Amino acid sequence: MALLRSYVSGRWFTSPSEGAPLHDAVTGDEIARISADGVDRAAALDYGRRVGGAALRELTFHQRGALLKALASYLREHREELYALSARTGATKADSLIDVDGGIGVLFTYSGKAKRELPNSRVYVDGAVEPLGRAGTFVGRHIGTPLRGVAVQINAFNFPVWGPLEKFAPAFVAGVPSLIKPASQTAYVTEKLVELIIASGLLPEGSVQLLSGGAGDLLDHLTEQDLVGFTGSASTAAKLRTHPAVVRNGVRFNAEADSLNCSILGPDAVPGTPEFDLYVKQLVTEMTTKAGQKCTAIRRALVPAGLLDDVAEAASARLARVVIGNPADGTVRMGALAGLEQREEVRRSLKALLSTGKIVFGSPDKVEVVGADAVRGAFLSPVLLTADASAAEPHSVEAFGPVATLVPYKDVSDAVALAARGAGSLVGSVVTHDVDFAREVVLGVAPWHGRVLVLDRDDAGESTGHGSPLPMLVHGGPGRAGGGEELGGVRAVLHHLQRTAVQASPRVLTAVTDQWVTGTPRTEGDVHPFRKRLGELRLGDSVVAGPRVVTLGDVEHFAEFTGDTFYAHMDEEAAAANPFFGGRVAHGYLVVSFAAGLFVSPEPGPVLANYGLDNLRFLTPTFPGDELTVTLTVKQITPREDKEYGEVRWDADLVNQKGESVAKYDVLTLVAK
Amino acid sequence: MALLRSYVSGRWFTSPSEGAPLHDAVTGDEIARISADGVDRAAALDYGRRVGGAALRELTFHQRGALLKALASYLREHREELYALSARTGATKADSLIDVDGGIGVLFTYSGKAKRELPNSRVYVDGAVEPLGRAGTFVGRHIGTPLRGVAVQINAFNFPVWGPLEKFAPAFVAGVPSLIKPASQTAYVTEKLVELIIASGLLPEGSVQLLSGGAGDLLDHLTEQDLVGFTGSASTAAKLRTHPAVVRNGVRFNAEADSLNCSILGPDAVPGTPEFDLYVKQLVTEMTTKAGQKCTAIRRALVPAGLLDDVAEAASARLARVVIGNPADGTVRMGALAGLEQREEVRRSLKALLSTGKIVFGSPDKVEVVGADAVRGAFLSPVLLTADASAAEPHSVEAFGPVATLVPYKDVSDAVALAARGAGSLVGSVVTHDVDFAREVVLGVAPWHGRVLVLDRDDAGESTGHGSPLPMLVHGGPGRAGGGEELGGVRAVLHHLQRTAVQASPRVLTAVTDQWVTGTPRTEGDVHPFRKRLGELRLGDSVVAGPRVVTLGDVEHFAEFTGDTFYAHMDEEAAAANPFFGGRVAHGYLVVSFAAGLFVSPEPGPVLANYGLDNLRFLTPTFPGDELTVTLTVKQITPREDKEYGEVRWDADLVNQKGESVAKYDVLTLVAK
Repeated sequence: MALLRSYVSGRWFTSPSEGAPLHDAVTGDEIARISADGVDRAAALDYGRRVGGAALRELTFHQRGALLKALASYLREHREELYALSARTGATKADSLIDVDGGIGVLFTYSGKAKRELPNSRVYVDGAVEPLGRAGTFVGRHIGTPLRGVAVQINAFNFPVWGPLEKFAPAFVAGVPSLIKPASQTAYVTEKLVELIIASGLLPEGSVQLLSGGAGDLLDHLTEQDLVGFTGSASTAAKLRTHPAVVRNGVRFNAEADSLNCSILGPDAVPGTPEFDLYVKQLVTEMTTKAGQKCTAIRRALVPAGLLDDVAEAASARLARVVIGNPADGTVRMGALAGLEQREEVRRSLKALLSTGKIVFGSPDKVEVVGADAVRGAFLSPVLLTADASAAEPHSVEAFGPVATLVPYKDVSDAVALAARGAGSLVGSVVTHDVDFAREVVLGVAPWHGRVLVLDRDDAGESTGHGSPLPMLVHGGPGRAGGGEELGGVRAVLHHLQRTAVQASPRVLTAVTDQWVTGTPRTEGDVHPFRKRLGELRLGDSVVAGPRVVTLGDVEHFAEFTGDTFYAHMDEEAAAANPFFGGRVAHGYLVVSFAAGLFVSPEPGPVLANYGLDNLRFLTPTFPGDELTVTLTVKQITPREDKEYGEVRWDADLVNQKGESVAKYDVLTLVAK
Repeated sequence: MALLRSYVSGRWFTSPSEGAPLHDAVTGDEIARISADGVDRAAALDYGRRVGGAALRELTFHQRGALLKALASYLREHREELYALSARTGATKADSLIDVDGGIGVLFTYSGKAKRELPNSRVYVDGAVEPLGRAGTFVGRHIGTPLRGVAVQINAFNFPVWGPLEKFAPAFVAGVPSLIKPASQTAYVTEKLVELIIASGLLPEGSVQLLSGGAGDLLDHLTEQDLVGFTGSASTAAKLRTHPAVVRNGVRFNAEADSLNCSILGPDAVPGTPEFDLYVKQLVTEMTTKAGQKCTAIRRALVPAGLLDDVAEAASARLARVVIGNPADGTVRMGALAGLEQREEVRRSLKALLSTGKIVFGSPDKVEVVGADAVRGAFLSPVLLTADASAAEPHSVEAFGPVATLVPYKDVSDAVALAARGAGSLVGSVVTHDVDFAREVVLGVAPWHGRVLVLDRDDAGESTGHGSPLPMLVHGGPGRAGGGEELGGVRAVLHHLQRTAVQASPRVLTAVTDQWVTGTPRTEGDVHPFRKRLGELRLGDSVVAGPRVVTLGDVEHFAEFTGDTFYAHMDEEAAAANPFFGGRVAHGYLVVSFAAGLFVSPEPGPVLANYGLDNLRFLTPTFPGDELTVTLTVKQITPREDKEYGEVRWDADLVNQKGESVAKYDVLTLVAK
C-alpha cells in the first residue's frame, strides 16, 4: 500500500519506513500508510524561513492576495479529486462541500480582504499617527511586518481540506510560509490538496510544505519567529503549549480545541413558532453533519424547562428520519465517523454522560445502516440525551460524534449561567424572536464565546448556521476552546505580523510606512499633481491653492441654492447664541466645495474621479470675510494589480487667514497608471 | 519593623507572620518586612470577580475613563509621599519622576483615550459590519466585552509605581478588576500607592486589590476568565506560563521580560555630526538612569567598525562625569541598585560578559560614591565593554544594571543581523540622519522588536528617548522579551476584552451593539429628529427627504460658483471618454450639499453643529435630470460625561430615482442634552 508523501525542502519525500495503516471509514479497507520517519524537520523549517519567507516578503499584500485567488480558482477546477477521497473519510457529499468548497471559499475571501482592506505594500500600518511632542517633530505609529519564521499548522482529522486552508490563507497573505501537519486519519486528503497546490505552480517555492506523519522533533527547532497553530484536543494543546522550545522562545501559540457549545431556545419560541422549528432543525443538523465530528457542533441544548418535552419529541421525530450509511448512497444523510477508534472514544464519552443523563433518542450500540457493513464501518446512531440542570457531565464531557444533551433552564440568568459552565466555547447560539432576550443572552455569554449566532425568522433564510465558522468572522474561543483566535478576516493576518511602534520624525515615519505623515516636507513642483500619472506621483507631492474670500453673499447664496438654511448660516441673532459659533458661519459643505474649486485642475488628465472623502472634521468655523487656502498632498498611493488605475489618497488641509485649520480630510481619487 | 499590608476582599490585612526584611538600597537599613501568609487568595480572586467586576461593568468606557482622570489628579496631589519612599529604592529624583509622574501620566492618557477612542457604552464594537448574505437579512460584527475574571498583575521591582499603574489603567478602562502583586524589594512604594488609591475613595470597591508578599497558591485558583500580566525575568515568566491552571484554563498570559536591547549608530553619524553626539548621550543616559535597571535599557551598542573607538572614547568621557551616590545629594546623577542581591547578580553577569568582552570604562568592583556608604549601599560603577562581532555573550547575557557592550558592524545587513541575535527585544533604536538607512534598519529589525526609535537632529528636541515606553505605544516584544504586549492605547484595553463575532439580523445586531446597522427598521415619526434632544433620540430615528432634481443648470452653476470646473462636469465629450462616467455628471460636493439642503431642519434647536463627515463614498454618478432622495438615520449616540451635549452620528443614504445608491456617509453632529 502506498505511503503518503511529505513535501519538504523543495521536494516530495517518501519515508523509508513501513508506516502505519489508514483505513476507509466506511469499508474498513486500508487506503494508505503514513510515516514521516526520515524527514529532516529542522531543515524543512530552515528552508521555509530562508526560501519561502524571503520569496513571500518580496510580494505586497495585494500580490499575495492575487495569488490566493488564482489558487482558489485552480482548486475549484480540481475539487472532484478531493471529493472522491473525502467520501472515504465517512463524509457525505454535503459534508465534503463544507470541507472542500468551504476551504476554497476561505481563499477567495482572503484574496478579497487583502485587496480591499490591506495596502498594496509590504508594510501594514496599524492605527493613527500618535503625536509625541507639541511641535510635531516627534511622532509615533504602529506597523506590522511579517514574522521571519514558519507557521507550523497542526490540524485535526475532521476537516482535511478546510482545516489546512483556513490556517494557510492568512499566513500567506501576511507573508509567512506554512508547514502543514495533518492528522493521520485523513492525511491522504490533505496530501492530495498539497499535491494540487504544488502542481498548480502558482505559489512561491517554500511557501507551503507538508509533513505527512508524526511531528517528531519538529517543535524542538522552533525559534522566536515561528508560530504554531493547533486544532485538536485540549490535552494535546496543553502538551504543545508547554513544549520547552515554545515556552523558551515565546513562540506564538494559537489553539482551537473542541468545546461544549450550547444552543439556547428562547422562552418565546414555543411550538408553533418559526423559532421552535428552526431550533429543532438546527439541533438535528448539528448532531448529524459530519456525524457530529465538528468542534463547533451543539453539545448542550439549553431549553426552557417547560419546553423540554416538546423539544425532545420534535428532535426525536426528526432524528428518526435521518438515513445513516455509505455516503455513496444518495439517500444517506449521515455518514460514518472517521474511524473505529473515534467511535470507541465517543462510546466512552457517552458512558460518562449516561452516569447522570438519560437517552431520549438513539443508542450507543445499535444503528441501522444503508449500503455499508455496520461492523467494518465506523457508524454510530445519533444519540440525544437529557440531564438535570445540576448535572456536571453535560458541561464537561465531550462526545465528539452525533451526540447532544438537552438541559432545562429556569430564566435568562440561569440560561447564561449554564452556558458559562462550558468554561469557554467556540460558538453559542440563541434562537428567539425577542430582541431583549437576545441582547441579554448575547452580552451575558459573550465573554465565554468566540462566536454567537442569533437565529430567528428574520435571518433564517440567509443564516449559515451554528456550526459554520466563516472566514470574515473570528473562529476560536476562551478557556476550554483553547484561548485562541483564527480567521476574522484581516485579524488572522495580523496574528502573523509583529506589531512594532515606530517613533521618529515625520520624514522618517513617511519613509518607513509608505504613507505621508503630516510634518513631512512637501514637494510643490511646477506640474500640478493632477497632471501626473499614478507611477509619476510621489508621497508628498502637493499643491497649495487660494486664498479665496468667503463672503456673506456666498453663504446666503449657497443656502438658497442648496436649501440648507440652517439658522447658524442665516440668522445672526440665533447664531450668536450657539455655543460654538457666536455669529453666522459658512456651511461646512460650502468651504469644502470652495476648497475643491481651488485645488482642482480641470482639464482631462490622469485623475479620473473623486470617489469619496474620509475623516472630514471641521475644526474652526468660517466667518464671512475669512480667506481660505487649501493644501492638497499625496498621502497614499495604491496601484490596483488588475486595473489600469489605482487609488490616491490626498491629505487636504484648509486654513484661514490666521493660519487656523478650518478643516482636515482625506480626498480619495482614482488615477490612471 | 512594620509589616507591609495587603488589601484584599475589601479590607487591609496584616499577616500574622514575622515576614522577610526589606532594606534601604542606599543605607542598607531595614525599611519594612513583608509577608502575605494568611491571605486567602482564592477569596480575593472571587471577591474581585464578584464585587469589583460587577461594579466596573455597570460603568461605560467613558465613565471609567473619567474616574481614572480623577484618580490621576488625586495621585498627582499626593506624589511627594511617593517620591520620599522612592528615594529609598536607590532612585534619584529624576528616576522617581519617571516612575511616579510617568505612572500618573499613564492614567491621564488612558482617560483621554477612553473618551476619544471608545464609545460611551458598555460594549466595544470592533470593525465594520460584515454582510453574510445577499439580501442583507443576516449580518455579522465583532464586539468586545470585559472578561469576567481578575487581571492578576505581577510586577518587577524597578518601577514600583509605573509598573502597577501601566497594567491597571487598561484593565480598569476595560472593566476588569486588578489584583496587584508587587516584587518584594520595593513593595513598600507600591503599598503606599495602593493606600492612596483606596484612600481616594474614587474607585468602585473591589476594582483594585494588593497582595504584598508571595503569590502562594494564587495561580491555582485562576479560571478561564482571569488574566495574568507579568513583568520580570524570562525564567519566572516560563514558570508562570506553564502553571497547570494557566495551561488548563487557557488563561491569557502576557509577559514582558528583560531583553538585550540594541542601539544602532548610522554610518553617516560620524564625530562632529549631531547624531554622533545624540548617540553617545543616549547611550550614557540609558546606562545610568535607574542605575541601568530598566528592561528597556541599551545593552548592545552596535556601531560601524570604523567608529567604535570614537564612540568608546566619547562615551567614556561622558561616563566619567556621572556622579554616583546618595540620591538625596543634589549633585548625584546615578543612585544605587535596588539591593545588594541585585548587585551580586549584575556582577555575575559581568563575569560572563568578560569571558569574551573587554572593559572600556568602569569596574565591577570599584566605585566612587558621594554621600553614602559604598559598603552598605548597593552601588556599582557604570561598566562599558567592547566585544567582537562574533562573541555570543553580548546577545545572550543580560547584566541588569549600568552595563552595556559596544559591538562593531560592517554594513546595514550586518547591523540588522546582529540586532536579530538578541532573539526578541522590547526596543531598539537607530541614530542616523540618512532616511534610507533608517528605513532599511527599521523594516529589517521590526519583526524582533516591540518598539523602534529613530533619533536624529529633527526629532531630538522632542524625543522621549530609547528607554521610555509611552502609554500610546505598545510596550513588549517577541521571543526573549516575553512575546507579550502592553499599553499601546486602546490596544491594551482590548487585551482585557473577549472578542466575539455576533451573527444576527440587523435588528438584533443593532440592539446588541448600541449602533444602528443598515437593514434595521427605521422610525420615521411626526417630529423631525433635529428637533429632539440627545436624551430623546433613539437609534433608528430617521427622516426621509426629497426628491430633488439635479439639473444641468445646477451643475454649471455650482461649477462657476465654486470654481470646480473639472471636465467631467463641464465637457460632455471629455466626460463621455471617462471610463466611469460616460457623460457629464454632477459634482460629488454638489450632491451632498443638496442632500443637506433636503434633510436639514433649519430653525434653532438641539442640533448645534455639523462637525464632520466620515466614510463618504460616491457609488453611482448623478447625471443631469436625476432625482435625489436622502434618508438620515440616527446611528450612534455618544453623550459627553462632562458636557451639556453629546455626539450623534447619522447614517446618510442618498439614492436616485432608480433606487441606486448615489452616496453613503456618516454625518457627525453635536446635539444638546
